[in-house]
Amino acid sequence: MIKDLREATAAGVLDCKKALEASGGDVEKAKAYLREKGIAAAARKADREVKEGLIEAYVHAGGRVGALIELDCETDFVARTEEFRALAHDLAMQVVAANPLYLAPEDIPPHVLEEETKDYRAQARDAGKPEHVIEKVVEGKLQKYYQEVCLMKQPFIKDDELTVQDIITRMIAKVGENIVVRRFARFELGG
Amino acid sequence: MIKDLREATAAGVLDCKKALEASGGDVEKAKAYLREKGIAAAARKADREVKEGLIEAYVHAGGRVGALIELDCETDFVARTEEFRALAHDLAMQVVAANPLYLAPEDIPPHVLEEETKDYRAQARDAGKPEHVIEKVVEGKLQKYYQEVCLMKQPFIKDDELTVQDIITRMIAKVGENIVVRRFARFELGG
Repeated sequence: MIKDLREATAAGVLDCKKALEASGGDVEKAKAYLREKGIAAAARKADREVKEGLIEAYVHAGGRVGALIELDCETDFVARTEEFRALAHDLAMQVVAANPLYLAPEDIPPHVLEEETKDYRAQARDAGKPEHVIEKVVEGKLQKYYQEVCLMKQPFIKDDELTVQDIITRMIAKVGENIVVRRFARFELGG
Repeated sequence: MIKDLREATAAGVLDCKKALEASGGDVEKAKAYLREKGIAAAARKADREVKEGLIEAYVHAGGRVGALIELDCETDFVARTEEFRALAHDLAMQVVAANPLYLAPEDIPPHVLEEETKDYRAQARDAGKPEHVIEKVVEGKLQKYYQEVCLMKQPFIKDDELTVQDIITRMIAKVGENIVVRRFARFELGG
């Protein structure tokens, strides 16, 4: 049971044991417990300095589009692991395939955000939405826009049930180090 | 003789024949003739639209530094040739190794250029240079600065007798298409 739980959550043996005890042996509940714990632990690491990491590139076959990405972590030890390398590679592929424009919502320039918000509000008005729901509609459309243009909010190309942020949070929980996508570039011919 | 000339200059058979005739069979003079002709021909192509090309990436072993580059040409046919691919690869390596900050002098932001010029002028004054040579000294130092920070002005990593611009001009003369480095990105850990 512990083995299944470990494979499903990437948590350590002790954590899995504790989670199973806390949930009275219910694997699904134990998973939820660990997920919460993992995310909490990851969040606690978010302020830790990241000075190591990897630069990774991916060029799509044919050379018409390519990406460069910097994925940072705390130690060279983690940077050299196979799983960290695989994550960097997946993220470079994500940038090529899903064409993000920004890392996170806070990186969207204010004038772009204003323009989007204005458009959504006008659309909602044109669609005859009552005033008191318009802001909610706008907020919903903004969230959708973030999922389209922000790398961290995009559905992960290898599992669209998860966002890129989810994937990184899981890796943080797994390796016990803060991990940050510092920057990316994407070039496309004629783009 | 034509074969030697072709190998040395990458010019066509007819051009080589013409050059040898024009230079009375002197291979060195014919080379100079073709070089001038090649550069002239390349310059004439500089306004031609480039919509094809290659995105190429290079990550230095260990993943601590990497580059992404877009090298454009006129046709997909040229973009697929081995020599064009090799040029794109060399240029990505050049960006990693020589760390350019800009493509060409005209891409340096005016405030950076002003700051550099001010520094050079002050240094020349401090060194006691007479006023009438200071501008010459400043110009010389600016040229040196361009060779350091501008990709097109840098000595080519595989042959420092030539600049990157020279290499591209030669390729233009060789393939008969305009070729342009459109953009590059370079990421270095902690950079």
